[in-house]
Amino acid sequence: MSLTPAPETEQPVLAISPERLAAAVAAQRGLAERLFARLAEGSPGNPGIMRDTYGAGEDFGHRVFAEAAAAAGLAVTTDAALNTYATWRGSDPSAPAILMGSHLDSVPHGGNFDGAAGVVAGLVTLAALRTLGVAPRRDLTVMGVRAEESVWFQVSYIGSRGALGTLPEGALEAKRIDTGRPLADHIRDCGGDPEAMRRRERSLDPGRIRAFLEVHIEQAPSLVEAGFPIAICTGIPGNFRHPNARILGRYDHVGTPRRFRRDAAMAGMALAAELDAIWAEHEARGEGMAVTFGRFHTDADKHGMTTVPGEFRFSLDVRAYDEAVLARVEARMHEAIARIEAERSVVFDLGTRASAAVGPVDPGIRTALTDAAERLGIPAMPLGSPASHDSAAFATAGVPVAMLFVRNEHGSHNPLEAMAIDDFMAAATVLAQWVADNAG
Amino acid sequence: MSLTPAPETEQPVLAISPERLAAAVAAQRGLAERLFARLAEGSPGNPGIMRDTYGAGEDFGHRVFAEAAAAAGLAVTTDAALNTYATWRGSDPSAPAILMGSHLDSVPHGGNFDGAAGVVAGLVTLAALRTLGVAPRRDLTVMGVRAEESVWFQVSYIGSRGALGTLPEGALEAKRIDTGRPLADHIRDCGGDPEAMRRRERSLDPGRIRAFLEVHIEQAPSLVEAGFPIAICTGIPGNFRHPNARILGRYDHVGTPRRFRRDAAMAGMALAAELDAIWAEHEARGEGMAVTFGRFHTDADKHGMTTVPGEFRFSLDVRAYDEAVLARVEARMHEAIARIEAERSVVFDLGTRASAAVGPVDPGIRTALTDAAERLGIPAMPLGSPASHDSAAFATAGVPVAMLFVRNEHGSHNPLEAMAIDDFMAAATVLAQWVADNAG
Repeated sequence: MSLTPAPETEQPVLAISPERLAAAVAAQRGLAERLFARLAEGSPGNPGIMRDTYGAGEDFGHRVFAEAAAAAGLAVTTDAALNTYATWRGSDPSAPAILMGSHLDSVPHGGNFDGAAGVVAGLVTLAALRTLGVAPRRDLTVMGVRAEESVWFQVSYIGSRGALGTLPEGALEAKRIDTGRPLADHIRDCGGDPEAMRRRERSLDPGRIRAFLEVHIEQAPSLVEAGFPIAICTGIPGNFRHPNARILGRYDHVGTPRRFRRDAAMAGMALAAELDAIWAEHEARGEGMAVTFGRFHTDADKHGMTTVPGEFRFSLDVRAYDEAVLARVEARMHEAIARIEAERSVVFDLGTRASAAVGPVDPGIRTALTDAAERLGIPAMPLGSPASHDSAAFATAGVPVAMLFVRNEHGSHNPLEAMAIDDFMAAATVLAQWVADNAG
Repeated sequence: MSLTPAPETEQPVLAISPERLAAAVAAQRGLAERLFARLAEGSPGNPGIMRDTYGAGEDFGHRVFAEAAAAAGLAVTTDAALNTYATWRGSDPSAPAILMGSHLDSVPHGGNFDGAAGVVAGLVTLAALRTLGVAPRRDLTVMGVRAEESVWFQVSYIGSRGALGTLPEGALEAKRIDTGRPLADHIRDCGGDPEAMRRRERSLDPGRIRAFLEVHIEQAPSLVEAGFPIAICTGIPGNFRHPNARILGRYDHVGTPRRFRRDAAMAGMALAAELDAIWAEHEARGEGMAVTFGRFHTDADKHGMTTVPGEFRFSLDVRAYDEAVLARVEARMHEAIARIEAERSVVFDLGTRASAAVGPVDPGIRTALTDAAERLGIPAMPLGSPASHDSAAFATAGVPVAMLFVRNEHGSHNPLEAMAIDDFMAAATVLAQWVADNAG
């Protein structure tokens, strides 16, 4: 993204009243509805949505975004990782930019709003502010982030960490789970420059970013439960993951006595029981964390009713809002594994370990968003993010970040995900208010 | 099987010394080796052995058996279920027959001896006795049993219960796990008569059977551990089974808080943990039982690292030597399921329930086999059968049964199964001694 001076004819930003701002954002409701409809139509997942990472679905999302941004008079650029940026140039090229956005990919059979809502909210914000006849001092940029959904390459934050030059060693060699081809090849096929990414050439300088703000649907029903349309994020969980772990035991006849067994499935059960108990302990103390064995299975080619399982596979995601909690849980997991290996005569092979740092939210922006919501008369509650988000990659790189969550039924990562446009507009309004207040 | 009088020219059975008998059996070692080699060559499983139930592999096993039996001068017949019988006619058609045998099918990628050893032991026994110039008063029959391996149709003892007219309702409609076609169709394709089986026309009258004796490889390493070549069975476990159980929860985003989750995999974990603990309790009290979740898995089409599993599938086999233990464990399992359903907001669907009664061993025959082994100088230990066997179907029908186990490395139901021919010959010798002692 190149930062060029804004034309001198534009006017400086003035304080905008909540009433004027809310009306200007409300006038963009049609834009939001049209963009969501176009995204859904062009990326069917049968059922749900399929915007595959560095594939046809994600490409389509970025095309829709770029066309809408250009139509709104914004300058559209991309970078080596193929993130798309739509910028309203500010008058002072030296002023750190405000970034808004989220990702445009989805899980297979996912929903239309997970990710895309943050990009559309950014466009709605800029479109609304442009109707108010003001000119920002700093660049205001909507970023369509690539490759957030780690289900495809088992690597998280590829687009945002690519832009920030913080992609970990080996990430470009990660294979897409369906094609088996490396990330670098997929990026090249889409027109990106994996070699520049490999050299860690960053397209974003954290020191030149005032803030990264991300609107995202909530991926759990906390807002539905509490009856709030939106929430202001208090923190983004970090995690450690083992995408492809396995346990090796021995296949045996169903009648094999207990002392001879090396039952890999029951070893998997024992590890899951242990981590589930650790989670329940933390829950009882009010310490937020979660444990997910997304894949948890015997080998379909070899398992059978009358055979003791000799191999077991699983994926593991452990997340928490506190690095100390993550470290403690991981240590206890390794103790449990050593005990289970001895007790059940099996061997664990955890495979690759991936992790993401806890993403702290900027306290100043969080307070300002809370104030803005109050001034606008929009009910908002504080909420720890259940999920990981690109914001965490920005926070790790030293950028002040904040998030707004939109009420969403049926969770996400599934075709039933459901967001009311009214709730979305409430989040966009709070976002626009903060941007207006801080664009000068 | 028709029971016809033996020719009057044959001589009555005389007492045969252990030395003479042992030498006569030892002389059949080549026959045993040839038969095992021919069976293995003709039913490759790549790896291991594949004698699929009511398929080409099992058909081949029965053909080899029938040809060897005819060559040995035995009368070969089959029944509606396509069990194969090789009979040395006795002089007294009214005397209840002695049956020996086992099954000729295997699991996919199984071993060569699981099942076949019992049929070959029967042939070796009759071949040896025929060289001794004696004539039995009662029929001596080797039975090649069909369809013992329940992995194919998820129904146990199809051949033996078909012969005894005790096949349960609906068994003929069970579908073969790979072809999806009903048992009745597979039987018809092989030349059998499923309609006669449906009418429960029995080919064996339990009242006309003196005993059923089954030689079988041990399917656990107890004999290897104890250093004995053979064991004399003390009991055959009964079981209850759920071949195709599932748990329905809800697919959710990996960040979903605990209170909202309906994690089907963790519900599966909880049930397995409960049954494993119940097993450990019984083990500590010395009450033999076993619990096996042979299939234990999330849905490969829908699972993923960042998705809480909404569905989980498993097979369950619970076995014990005591009907009261089975009933108690099953009751506790249902209590646990109700608790887990409430705690984890999931629903269990256990699917079909199958069961097999505990198979008691005839105490008189067991003692006689122990005595015979001692007289022959063959070390033999008592052992509860870890596995289910056709003998249990005979016991349930009121036939006196007994079993001899042969030492076997690496368990069974896998390609590494390994039996030394010396150990096999030891079992055949004890079997032949008992048959010689009781043929008169």
